[in-house]
Amino acid sequence: MTHTPPGYSDHKVAHLNRLKRIEGQVRGIARMVEDGKYCIDVLTQVSAAKKALESVALLLLDEHLQHCVRHAAEAGGEEADLKIAEASQAIARLVRS
Amino acid sequence: MTHTPPGYSDHKVAHLNRLKRIEGQVRGIARMVEDGKYCIDVLTQVSAAKKALESVALLLLDEHLQHCVRHAAEAGGEEADLKIAEASQAIARLVRS
Amino acid sequence: MTHTPPGYSDHKVAHLNRLKRIEGQVRGIARMVEDGKYCIDVLTQVSAAKKALESVALLLLDEHLQHCVRHAAEAGGEEADLKIAEASQAIARLVRS
Amino acid sequence: MTHTPPGYSDHKVAHLNRLKRIEGQVRGIARMVEDGKYCIDVLTQVSAAKKALESVALLLLDEHLQHCVRHAAEAGGEEADLKIAEASQAIARLVRS
Repeated sequence: MTHTPPGYSDHKVAHLNRLKRIEGQVRGIARMVEDGKYCIDVLTQVSAAKKALESVALLLLDEHLQHCVRHAAEAGGEEADLKIAEASQAIARLVRS
Repeated sequence: MTHTPPGYSDHKVAHLNRLKRIEGQVRGIARMVEDGKYCIDVLTQVSAAKKALESVALLLLDEHLQHCVRHAAEAGGEEADLKIAEASQAIARLVRS
Repeated sequence: MTHTPPGYSDHKVAHLNRLKRIEGQVRGIARMVEDGKYCIDVLTQVSAAKKALESVALLLLDEHLQHCVRHAAEAGGEEADLKIAEASQAIARLVRS
Repeated sequence: MTHTPPGYSDHKVAHLNRLKRIEGQVRGIARMVEDGKYCIDVLTQVSAAKKALESVALLLLDEHLQHCVRHAAEAGGEEADLKIAEASQAIARLVRS
């Protein structure tokens, strides 16, 4: 199964910026814990970082459907079955995370 | 409103280790995007990082209830009302993130 | 462990109305499936019912903290430990559902 | 935009049974509130009903991808764009519910 380039290629830089920002958020949360900041303020930042990861996931998923799943469906056959089953599993993992 | 030390003080090192690991996960996801790794594999890691943040949040919340909310409830009065309302809002933010 | 009346007693009628409405939403979804309505329209209603259940849960949880957990914390000792551990587990179940 | 029959047609009876069970769960929760059952026990059932709705949604979504989105992608053009955008929005609503 080849899959080059991935569905998110067109927005690679935007994704990298988002992820760099989330990495900074997580590092900021660690600094808050280090400094003994108030639990609720730490929690607010954890929920924000979680929400930001969720947004990245939804964007990646949309691009995956637009490109990889769409192309597999056009090609048809087993590859289409496989890609759709795989996408459904990824959606389930995201919904449950 | 003073709140020193925060409810998570006893497990500060464990939380810092967890957050350092999550920071590494997010950096790893950025590397996957940089390298053009397959969308679904990236998504799996994003869901895992999201789940890890959720676990940190649940631990922080439990410690907050055990210490800060419990002490405020013992003290009673307005401080108790305030701390409980604040905890409920933090729970709602987490559930919705 | 006695716990009468439950924390939600003051808002029992409001909760019953909310639950009756959600029951109607779920019955409406079944009717949509029966009638072969479009998948996405069914899904929209399922997400709405899920969100409505989540709101009921957050209200119940807030009232539980305000009454049962608060009283247990005032009483102190083992009952307080137990009630807080129990609340944390309920929060975790909700976050993961 | 025609979409007959919906993607879930093959499993209509199974979905109706699931929804009937969830409707019964919600009615059972109302009965628990009516009877003044303990908050945490009510909450456990609310989380279970929420989880059951989530499962129905994931099944509907999988069938929608397998049928409606797949056929639209085979047909190509604007219909494919539209169906994929619509699926992404439904996924986002579910993830956020």
